[in-house]
Amino acid sequence: MVTPIDYAHEHAATFRQQLYELIRIPSVSTDSTLAGEVQRAANWLADDLRRIGMGNVAVLPTAGHPVVYADWLEAGDDKPTVLIYGHYDVQPADQEKDGWSSPPFEPVEREGFIYARGSSDDKGQAFIHLKAVESLLKTVGALPVNVKFILEGEEEIGSKNLQPFLKTYADMLKADIAVISDTGMTVADQPEVTRALRGLTYMELHVTSSRIDLHSGGYGGAVHNPALALAQIIAKLHNADNSIAVPGFYDKVRPLNEADRAEIAKLAYTDEQFLNITGAPGVWGEEGYTADERVVGRPTMEINGLLSGWTGEGAKTVLPAKAMAKISCRLVADQDPHEIYELTKAYIAQITPSTVRSELKLLNMGDPAMIDPNLPEMKAAVRAYERGWGKAPLFSRTGGSIPVVADFKRVLGVNTIMLGFGLNTDGAHGPDEHYSIEMFHKGIDTAIYFLEEVAK
Amino acid sequence: MVTPIDYAHEHAATFRQQLYELIRIPSVSTDSTLAGEVQRAANWLADDLRRIGMGNVAVLPTAGHPVVYADWLEAGDDKPTVLIYGHYDVQPADQEKDGWSSPPFEPVEREGFIYARGSSDDKGQAFIHLKAVESLLKTVGALPVNVKFILEGEEEIGSKNLQPFLKTYADMLKADIAVISDTGMTVADQPEVTRALRGLTYMELHVTSSRIDLHSGGYGGAVHNPALALAQIIAKLHNADNSIAVPGFYDKVRPLNEADRAEIAKLAYTDEQFLNITGAPGVWGEEGYTADERVVGRPTMEINGLLSGWTGEGAKTVLPAKAMAKISCRLVADQDPHEIYELTKAYIAQITPSTVRSELKLLNMGDPAMIDPNLPEMKAAVRAYERGWGKAPLFSRTGGSIPVVADFKRVLGVNTIMLGFGLNTDGAHGPDEHYSIEMFHKGIDTAIYFLEEVAK
Repeated sequence: MVTPIDYAHEHAATFRQQLYELIRIPSVSTDSTLAGEVQRAANWLADDLRRIGMGNVAVLPTAGHPVVYADWLEAGDDKPTVLIYGHYDVQPADQEKDGWSSPPFEPVEREGFIYARGSSDDKGQAFIHLKAVESLLKTVGALPVNVKFILEGEEEIGSKNLQPFLKTYADMLKADIAVISDTGMTVADQPEVTRALRGLTYMELHVTSSRIDLHSGGYGGAVHNPALALAQIIAKLHNADNSIAVPGFYDKVRPLNEADRAEIAKLAYTDEQFLNITGAPGVWGEEGYTADERVVGRPTMEINGLLSGWTGEGAKTVLPAKAMAKISCRLVADQDPHEIYELTKAYIAQITPSTVRSELKLLNMGDPAMIDPNLPEMKAAVRAYERGWGKAPLFSRTGGSIPVVADFKRVLGVNTIMLGFGLNTDGAHGPDEHYSIEMFHKGIDTAIYFLEEVAK
Repeated sequence: MVTPIDYAHEHAATFRQQLYELIRIPSVSTDSTLAGEVQRAANWLADDLRRIGMGNVAVLPTAGHPVVYADWLEAGDDKPTVLIYGHYDVQPADQEKDGWSSPPFEPVEREGFIYARGSSDDKGQAFIHLKAVESLLKTVGALPVNVKFILEGEEEIGSKNLQPFLKTYADMLKADIAVISDTGMTVADQPEVTRALRGLTYMELHVTSSRIDLHSGGYGGAVHNPALALAQIIAKLHNADNSIAVPGFYDKVRPLNEADRAEIAKLAYTDEQFLNITGAPGVWGEEGYTADERVVGRPTMEINGLLSGWTGEGAKTVLPAKAMAKISCRLVADQDPHEIYELTKAYIAQITPSTVRSELKLLNMGDPAMIDPNLPEMKAAVRAYERGWGKAPLFSRTGGSIPVVADFKRVLGVNTIMLGFGLNTDGAHGPDEHYSIEMFHKGIDTAIYFLEEVAK
């Protein structure tokens, strides 16, 4: 008899080809001109969910991009219901501008990796669960638990419409536990179960001065240049010790205790490894913490973008009328994303000189999350990894943000298990994003084991 | 008998239509994709110079965009030779991006002004001299002095190839005095003769950190964000009193004496006027100087552009690999533009933290210039304005840069008279650049009078 694992292994090449079809759809959620492609990716997933044997498949509209839903509830009331979440939208990618080695939406296999936007974050990881379910349904003819899929198209732009969606469909989405595969491991042979996520407050700062762009020779020196003023404001966001200067920013931060620091240290890079991976000339950050502690255990404030004046080739002696910065904070428990926005706004208003105007807009937010490692479903995840990898996983924290984890808890009352099958070095959000072929296939095995283990 | 002035007035509408043909050619010198348009503008001017009766008309190649030359030397050896300089290249302009009310390369007459890129800077002003020469040649049949035209296509990108051109053609360009119309007046009814120009050092600062763009959740907080580091560097370019912090920057600055300050004050805006014109919320600048003194009598350092990371719509949680700023200094006598670059480079190298890399590139330069108001040709200019405007001109300084003025002195040994027919409020380099129709026509009259007066 063909087991689910046999089926998954026999169909390995087919599964990858299917994934490549999905990846070829440039479902960039932040680019409104690509809204049709985001819709196309949703429809593609709905078709595959129908094909593998899921029921009640629907592409449900929201105020933004749609949510794909499907379920299989024939395991019975005495079996738990697992809500599998993934996202099919991706970050922007431009081969020339961002410096990709190959076209970002044409997957290429090189040295054991799939190179493409969304290969790891999150199409490749979400697709693992569809293929695990397919392997079970096409061999056993049933799943060991009830399963619901919810696949969203706005994760990369802050999942703004997901919370209202969860509220609207709370009954339909009722479950005992949620599962997300959208995190990474430090090394391929040491599985990890993520138990902490950072939150996010993403803002846009606008500084303006003159009504229109001026000639720098005619007015420069007597008008406060907004690009200069923006830089002066940004330079005041951090203290000399690289901590964040916004008053009250750290008030609700849960401090790292010795156990936390020991847990983080188990999976930490050495400074040398960190510099090799990033190519940065030096390790930077908040005094009193290691590089890994800064990334996974402490809040940060990053400049994600800058734009002002003339940015083309050569010289233009313009005195710009405006300057813009994208600024985002990664937050840890128990910081509140909206409060961080309010604190930052108040601080920026206070440090903006009277010779320019500033405005801080809130683009999106996500709560930080912590998961209890003693949950029975966490223990099922540990057993699934032991079977899939032949090795016990470590508990880890990620520096990234998956705001839906906090939303699942708040709206649906369910905890989330993060079964990550990416690698931290996958280059998510950057050029040449890639995804380990081995992790993809071991991930499908582990996702099958997880459904079996969580049924126990 | 029809006088040159009669001819100019009778042909006023035709002259404007001819100017609009020239303006419609988008000769943006900084944009290499528009090199063909720059060439087309040069050819158009050569055709007009031939038509109005100039001889030896040639479009002469350089390492960059061409120089248009023409002469009329029949006044004889006992008459002076006037070298008329202008530039036919323009600053970039994008209707949507920069916020123009009408297409920048389609001139529109509104309320006494011509709205178009290059209308004032410098097509509209350079064209005055072609029409003055035409008015003389088509009526008197001769010019009162020998005239040479030199019209360049790289003024907006620093006139890099003009100095070698001047050296190559020094004999051909031999003259007693040079004339440039590329400056502005404060008010339309008070003519000005500019006697000081600022120099320029235009630079590009690049700050880099990681090899490629990174996920801000995965690395942020432990890699020194280059957009943050760039802002931190820029924030150190000025002192708390808004003076420039680069050591040695002011060493060669000729201080303003009481006479200089009185001269500047005669044409100065009140703070209220300055704020009305610019729309800025406050006057800014170096402590101890008025707004006008800062613009025309003191050196400045401006940020002309900023670019890093994600600048499109919405949120992208990228930790950028690089950040760029365009930085330019306006210089006063006796600062040396290359020395200012070297000083700035040394200072930026010193303040760049070891956690990022920085590089300061030099894009272009121009020397500051001062002209003696007692030159006989300056007195001829004063008489020409008295006849053209019915009012004696004031001597003024401009905050802008016309590096060729210093080059004419150094290479050809000639002084330059600046017969400005623009207004400071024309919006040169910005959106909705415009040019007074009245100034254009009074300018042609005054240019005719100048050739007559300088012959005396």
